[in-house]
Amino acid sequence: MFESARIAHDIDKATFEEQLPKLRTDLLEAQFDLVEAKKFPVILIVAGMEGAGGIDALTSASKVLDTRHATTYALAAATEEESERPYMWRYWRTLPPKGDMAVYAGAWYTAPLTDRILGNSGEAEFEQELQALNRFEAMLAAEGALVLKFWLTIGRKEQVRCLKKLGGDARTRWLVEESLWGGAKRYKQVEHAAEQMMSITHTDHAPWISVNAENPYYRSLTVGLTILDAIKTRLSQPDKEEPVTAPVNVPVVDGRTVLTDLDLSLQLDKSDYRKQLAKYQDRLNELVWKKKFNKHSLVLVFEGNDATGKGGAIRRVTEFLDPRRYRVNQFATPTDEEKAQPYLWRFWRRLPRRNHIGIFDRSWYGRVLVERVEGFCAEADWRRAYGEINEFEKEMSDAGVIVIKFWLSIDRNEQMTRFKAREETGYKRYKITDEDWRNREKWDDYGDAVCDMIDNTSTSVRRGRWSRPTTSITPA
Amino acid sequence: MFESARIAHDIDKATFEEQLPKLRTDLLEAQFDLVEAKKFPVILIVAGMEGAGGIDALTSASKVLDTRHATTYALAAATEEESERPYMWRYWRTLPPKGDMAVYAGAWYTAPLTDRILGNSGEAEFEQELQALNRFEAMLAAEGALVLKFWLTIGRKEQVRCLKKLGGDARTRWLVEESLWGGAKRYKQVEHAAEQMMSITHTDHAPWISVNAENPYYRSLTVGLTILDAIKTRLSQPDKEEPVTAPVNVPVVDGRTVLTDLDLSLQLDKSDYRKQLAKYQDRLNELVWKKKFNKHSLVLVFEGNDATGKGGAIRRVTEFLDPRRYRVNQFATPTDEEKAQPYLWRFWRRLPRRNHIGIFDRSWYGRVLVERVEGFCAEADWRRAYGEINEFEKEMSDAGVIVIKFWLSIDRNEQMTRFKAREETGYKRYKITDEDWRNREKWDDYGDAVCDMIDNTSTSVRRGRWSRPTTSITPA
Repeated sequence: MFESARIAHDIDKATFEEQLPKLRTDLLEAQFDLVEAKKFPVILIVAGMEGAGGIDALTSASKVLDTRHATTYALAAATEEESERPYMWRYWRTLPPKGDMAVYAGAWYTAPLTDRILGNSGEAEFEQELQALNRFEAMLAAEGALVLKFWLTIGRKEQVRCLKKLGGDARTRWLVEESLWGGAKRYKQVEHAAEQMMSITHTDHAPWISVNAENPYYRSLTVGLTILDAIKTRLSQPDKEEPVTAPVNVPVVDGRTVLTDLDLSLQLDKSDYRKQLAKYQDRLNELVWKKKFNKHSLVLVFEGNDATGKGGAIRRVTEFLDPRRYRVNQFATPTDEEKAQPYLWRFWRRLPRRNHIGIFDRSWYGRVLVERVEGFCAEADWRRAYGEINEFEKEMSDAGVIVIKFWLSIDRNEQMTRFKAREETGYKRYKITDEDWRNREKWDDYGDAVCDMIDNTSTSVRRGRWSRPTTSITPA
Repeated sequence: MFESARIAHDIDKATFEEQLPKLRTDLLEAQFDLVEAKKFPVILIVAGMEGAGGIDALTSASKVLDTRHATTYALAAATEEESERPYMWRYWRTLPPKGDMAVYAGAWYTAPLTDRILGNSGEAEFEQELQALNRFEAMLAAEGALVLKFWLTIGRKEQVRCLKKLGGDARTRWLVEESLWGGAKRYKQVEHAAEQMMSITHTDHAPWISVNAENPYYRSLTVGLTILDAIKTRLSQPDKEEPVTAPVNVPVVDGRTVLTDLDLSLQLDKSDYRKQLAKYQDRLNELVWKKKFNKHSLVLVFEGNDATGKGGAIRRVTEFLDPRRYRVNQFATPTDEEKAQPYLWRFWRRLPRRNHIGIFDRSWYGRVLVERVEGFCAEADWRRAYGEINEFEKEMSDAGVIVIKFWLSIDRNEQMTRFKAREETGYKRYKITDEDWRNREKWDDYGDAVCDMIDNTSTSVRRGRWSRPTTSITPA
């Protein structure tokens, strides 16, 4: 693909220098408009043949742009904290907020591409990784990000010439010495892998732009003008709501759902409960201290109706755990840094390290529960969230994270009884707010949302299974 | 000290259970007021003898408080990312924003105290570390934080009994097995080190409260009521400005200052400049790739009059550096997460890892330059900033960070010439704003601020020396 990148372009220095000042001014002005509008982030990825000038592109970006709102990233090997979490964690850390730009050298493509070029991964594995990146970029685009990916290409002869020149200068020799792909000797492998990468991950919402970089003037003007046009076009577009594909409604012909099918009469007597609780707290502690747990981390998600006793259940889990090893996460109103990012960002921030337990008292499922029912986000947003959440949990699971999700359920009458009891207990009164009463009025809407959620996001055990929905086992 | 902590208290269970509900309600309500007011953060440190129930206190905090705005921290060994930065970095990462509470097990005292107890540090070193913590807490207090530190103490006999009990239960055995201080066998050492710690770091603005923890009911009520009272008292106090100690003015009797003493006529001719530039860029690259640099990181601070060419100077430094190894930091308006923290927080966030270079295009010196001159902060705030900045740079330097600071200087006429030239160049026009013209009118005020800054914050080379102030060496 990208046959046009083989055309030998010939822009001379004079033409370049004539055009450059206007391009710089225009880019800066586009950036100011972007910062002003704060409507979407711009994510630029520059990758390409070694010696094709990817580093130059980064340097130019920091020369031309207002760097208070544009950051360039050339990430080295993952740090310990990064390698203890899913692959994408380090990129989530660097995503630009709305109004800002980030320019990445290679970004999330570097590792899969390098593995493929060096023969450390096969074609199928490579394709699988690329498909995951596609899903990630689709999410970014759905969240509004402008994503442009440049592949700088040069011929083999030109590459040999460029690398020789770089190697001959003490100031740039490290570029050759630190070469990831070994320069010209793997030209064919690079070309082949890049083609596969682009054919799979070139999408409307995150396109690859392949640029012939043999003539640096042509290269710089092309990249610059493409970015300029993309930002201006996007800024001039009206805010549009994503169209919702007509969702299929499956009628519940016999009234039975995962919720109505629950046996809410299950009971444990107090002494039996105490005995079992102690036994399983023992067992949990034992498992957490096992050496094997060093390769894993544990994510526990607690969702449930109001007053089902999520807090109490969590306290029973943590009661005897080493507090250095777990963190219970609750979520207040998003901060402005969080609001300027995709909705999953605030949860990525809180992912536990290996050997640690992250407990989520309410979670990313808010998107398909409260946000759906209360209309806090557009229908298209929560509809696509199921897939994004599945992807998120898959990434965790692939990285060794054990994901377990609990839906705590009670019926409407029991909830009323508990609401009243809470109102009578001073220090529990704060747990009952007007919002809880409002939520209660939407009991059926929440029920529908819960059923859809469980249907759409429960997977095999390791990947993030919803526990068999259950009543709160905390005895009164 | 704290003889009162030796008194044998005897609160019975009934009394405790009678008082507890009201205490919980009151604490929660105080927390709601705190969150509402968003005026200051609350920092609680719980430390104490092993077996005295420090962990219980953390658990209670997460049971009693609204944990969306209260986080408990029991930090394990430093991660790689943490250990590559100054000791306090990991605590800066966890500081609660205004309106929130953080409860730390031991916090920044854990490491110095443990080192002392195990005999890994001498008394003098211990004292030095404690003094540094004093300065840190003074800064927190000056930024408005409410800091309370609890030391839970029990007698040796009682400790033996408690640890035996903990060790006999499978769910708590890890507490004994993971004991940092070795339990009762180091009772004397713990007692002695704690006393020294408290005598040095017990201050009005960050007091130690020593609590006899033999009776858990007495312990819990005392800790809870102390916190309650402190939060309520602080909330009821009017916002007060810190008093400014009458500053001493030293008249400049001969008109000579570090700025007027500069020889602004220094010149380099273009070919000499190019030769030297290449030579030192070579040399810099060589040093950065040296193995020894793995034990250091480099922080470069660039400050200067408007239009002195900071950006150009920085580009010459970075031109041939591996972009994975450096980051240029510029600072836009603080985000709300940043505004809710001490002013140094946004700079701590950006400290480079070992082997990396952090370049600051404008920096923490904004506090004593623009914030002082424009009145963006109270006089007391910028006056105390000199000391806080010196402390910050000392912490960096102690951790192996090489700190170099550049003040780029031009005279008023040269600035006018450059302003005009910039206005004529399209892509440089954005560099001249109304603010630049306003700053120019305050030329003398800025001059005074610069002289004070250099006098107050220039130290010996390794610790953060201001380079000999110099004209921008970038030729026109």
